[in-house]
Amino acid sequence: MKRIHSKDDIVQAGLELILSKGFNATGVESILKQANVPKGSFYNFFSSKEEFSLAIIDRYVADRGEELRPIFNDESLPPLERVKKSFEILIAKFEVNDCSKGCLMGNLGQEMSDQFENVRQRLEHSLQGWTKLLSRLLLQAQQERSIPADLDPEMLADNLIASFQGALLRAKVKKSSEPLKNFIYLYFDRFLTQREETE
Amino acid sequence: MKRIHSKDDIVQAGLELILSKGFNATGVESILKQANVPKGSFYNFFSSKEEFSLAIIDRYVADRGEELRPIFNDESLPPLERVKKSFEILIAKFEVNDCSKGCLMGNLGQEMSDQFENVRQRLEHSLQGWTKLLSRLLLQAQQERSIPADLDPEMLADNLIASFQGALLRAKVKKSSEPLKNFIYLYFDRFLTQREETE
Repeated sequence: MKRIHSKDDIVQAGLELILSKGFNATGVESILKQANVPKGSFYNFFSSKEEFSLAIIDRYVADRGEELRPIFNDESLPPLERVKKSFEILIAKFEVNDCSKGCLMGNLGQEMSDQFENVRQRLEHSLQGWTKLLSRLLLQAQQERSIPADLDPEMLADNLIASFQGALLRAKVKKSSEPLKNFIYLYFDRFLTQREETE
Repeated sequence: MKRIHSKDDIVQAGLELILSKGFNATGVESILKQANVPKGSFYNFFSSKEEFSLAIIDRYVADRGEELRPIFNDESLPPLERVKKSFEILIAKFEVNDCSKGCLMGNLGQEMSDQFENVRQRLEHSLQGWTKLLSRLLLQAQQERSIPADLDPEMLADNLIASFQGALLRAKVKKSSEPLKNFIYLYFDRFLTQREETE
């Protein structure tokens, strides 16, 4: 009943653990146990837990990309609606987890940015990719006049993601998704859809 | 040259370390070394590192309260301006630290909420206190018609704090205070000061 363990199995096991408990509270031993692999397998693939964290970030970003791509590309919906729906999908996922875990990028950004420069850079790169995706849709929303034309779409996209991460963190402490619902209401029904003053 | 170490000395030393490195990455040994006290002193005051973290949260909240009280109470400034200034003071502090560390409440909220229920509750209590302070000022701002009258001040205060925490986290990953400046601009020059549609 031996099984050959792939790099992917270890990444998946570690991702779950680190998303639940954080980077520093997760030992390599517990990742090995969860993935049911010997120590050698881990160090065959990764030189350190830090290097391993880069692999789980890539995996997490790829998974979220897969999940959100159909919404981002759904041309039957107005662009601003697609942005809103993409956040609602992430919120639903968080609710399934009883308002725990949160977003790996936010968690590791908080815990590792000051200590591990290569992890910080990988997170920065991933967040910029997310910002680019949203800013393209926000530009389209501007062209359709559904949001103010004089706001920089990239600045707005970056702020949307940051405020979403903040609401996620608030919800994690509150153990309620209320701050996330308020984020959706305030941004999509109020802040972004306000009338322009100069028309 | 013996010196009597107070509970306060240990709390201050641990606060600095945990703010820099996080809860899990900070060992009791390193707190003792930083505070220059023997192990017994620590366990005289605190039964565990977890209990210790409650003391540093209280200390952090008290310190921030001291810092911000003069602004909150400055009746020469309009209430919305006082809210804005209070965030600007926190941002200036973050910039002095080269965009590292961030806010202890955000950091511990991220790292500990899922694992330590009493820490989560203490953070929730502190965040609610902050929300109350801001919502009183936002209510006054509504009475002065400087922000829309139909928004719930408490919901808005909670969202402001959450979005500030998110911008702080984004700035920590970017190692630039740009996301925080954008937060100030978007909330205080755009989102909150929009004209009401029904007047």
